[in-house]
Amino acid sequence: MDRLPADALRSFTRKALRQVGVPEEDAAQIAALMIEADLQGSDGHGIFRLPQYIRRIQAGGVNPRPNIRIERSRAAMALVNGDNGMGHLAMRFAAQTAIQKARAAGAAWVGVRWSNHAGPASLYAKMPMREGMIGMYFAVGNANHLPPWGGVEMLLSTNPIAVAIPAGTEPPIVLDMATTVAAFGKVKTRAQRGETMPEGWMVDREGRPLTDPKRMDEGFLLPIGGYKGYGMALVFGILAGTLNRAAMGREVVDFNHDDATPTNTGQAILAIDVSAFEEMDSFKERIDALARDIRGSERMKGFERIFLPGEQSHARFVERGKLGIPVPPALLASLNGLGETLGIGKLA
Amino acid sequence: MDRLPADALRSFTRKALRQVGVPEEDAAQIAALMIEADLQGSDGHGIFRLPQYIRRIQAGGVNPRPNIRIERSRAAMALVNGDNGMGHLAMRFAAQTAIQKARAAGAAWVGVRWSNHAGPASLYAKMPMREGMIGMYFAVGNANHLPPWGGVEMLLSTNPIAVAIPAGTEPPIVLDMATTVAAFGKVKTRAQRGETMPEGWMVDREGRPLTDPKRMDEGFLLPIGGYKGYGMALVFGILAGTLNRAAMGREVVDFNHDDATPTNTGQAILAIDVSAFEEMDSFKERIDALARDIRGSERMKGFERIFLPGEQSHARFVERGKLGIPVPPALLASLNGLGETLGIGKLA
Repeated sequence: MDRLPADALRSFTRKALRQVGVPEEDAAQIAALMIEADLQGSDGHGIFRLPQYIRRIQAGGVNPRPNIRIERSRAAMALVNGDNGMGHLAMRFAAQTAIQKARAAGAAWVGVRWSNHAGPASLYAKMPMREGMIGMYFAVGNANHLPPWGGVEMLLSTNPIAVAIPAGTEPPIVLDMATTVAAFGKVKTRAQRGETMPEGWMVDREGRPLTDPKRMDEGFLLPIGGYKGYGMALVFGILAGTLNRAAMGREVVDFNHDDATPTNTGQAILAIDVSAFEEMDSFKERIDALARDIRGSERMKGFERIFLPGEQSHARFVERGKLGIPVPPALLASLNGLGETLGIGKLA
Repeated sequence: MDRLPADALRSFTRKALRQVGVPEEDAAQIAALMIEADLQGSDGHGIFRLPQYIRRIQAGGVNPRPNIRIERSRAAMALVNGDNGMGHLAMRFAAQTAIQKARAAGAAWVGVRWSNHAGPASLYAKMPMREGMIGMYFAVGNANHLPPWGGVEMLLSTNPIAVAIPAGTEPPIVLDMATTVAAFGKVKTRAQRGETMPEGWMVDREGRPLTDPKRMDEGFLLPIGGYKGYGMALVFGILAGTLNRAAMGREVVDFNHDDATPTNTGQAILAIDVSAFEEMDSFKERIDALARDIRGSERMKGFERIFLPGEQSHARFVERGKLGIPVPPALLASLNGLGETLGIGKLA
């Protein structure tokens, strides 16, 4: 598989967005966040999404020149209206607002409505983290793949949570997870490769294990911990969606099957300023010590290493920054086709 | 099984706490919260804990007359020192502080250190909820039963999360869950009854399913969603423990095997004022509509009803308020013995 330098991917993405009417500065910000996703290994959330994003802008589903603004504000909260622009822009604005408010108030919660898909959750939880804060992110996914526990109607998305915690010499602790056992992207990947799925990822409408990913439309994803994961998908969805008057439940637009309808995607970010609690250096030392206690603890037979959340994506970020980002042939062909259609030439 | 009126349990608990030096007003507050746990069906977290709490106060492990105070404060955060008092008092103080700050700032995060076991997570998430806010609670458990993913050293507790969301005519949505598949109390109950456990609750040190609860000391609990539940137990523990300079990882004191050592329990509460985002009535209507969409959606074969999180404990609260709280014979005997030892007479 070819590896391409991050710069090439970033430049291509920026140019493509420019061609469909996204202003230069916005295109650069979106491209930076999308390729950051590729660098950290969130392969289904980076440049892979570019053709879909372009399609949605062209179909009128996403506004290329949004007026992103604060609709409501107090010392430790804001409600941001993304004006149906790219989710990356709305969420970047929201995270910056949260950071600014948390610096003064100690903590801040910022909700977003009329946003769109913004890539991996951890991108935004890491923004406060880089400012010495703990970041926490919630989002309503852009397609419902999960029924309530005991039901068969897919009323919920795999609503993710991300938490990012600064460390000292250790990699930061970054949890980024869907509330389902497997993300839907993983199912699609198995289908493409002709592989089966393990039991526990999906069930059919009668609750029987579904292991053939080609039959994905006959069943749905399973939440983690059974009714617990359903509960999390619901309450995280309310925090990110309902509270912001964004889409939730039956209002969610399946953006995989509809390019033209605005999604009114809801997201939320919490920033907690560590220095309000104690000296930053002392906090980082204790996080480092905890990480080392965990990594160095006795392993179960068959495990070569104990990982901290975010440790593997941190390593991938470093490795791909040096060696480039692997781009599968099918994706490269699709991006090259897009580039020619848009008149910006091939990616590689 | 005998049912006793909540008032009788409350009065007995209050008197018992008075006898070991807890001031009248504090004893009444603790008793009210403990019996609220029994009313909502959190049987392992209510009066069941009284003998242990009394033992810990008598052994010097818990301070009966704490000076609970704010150590650090900003507009939207506070760090509370519980002075090693009963966790119920420290957390009630913290929740009140969070509510007060959130009313002005829109949201507030309050951390607690030098606290103790405080009963079920939902008790505290529901405090902001009753004030028209969304409450979110995190805690470090008081015994480590969970190793990191791939490890065998129990460095983590079943660190719970609770989220409470106000509704209109529907019961409020209240999620209260440990980050393990089963809580440790459930394992103990199975052992007492001589029953086996389903696969998936526990594994032994080689990762093999452990289904005999009498062998519980040879294994450990499994996190929900595998490495995901491990990640949640870790980051929730950092939010509730490390950030507040409370016990986390190897510092956690197993309060089931040690009555005398202060636990330095860490907890945290987040309050988000709904009215900062929109009119309360409109929010409640949308939560009600979402709850009804979910409850009324098509069921899977074999399921008689789809429940919302907190719906069953709400029904139990109403039912037990009318009919009384069931007290198993062994617990009643233990409480009666405690009452006689403390010179307050039998419970019933």
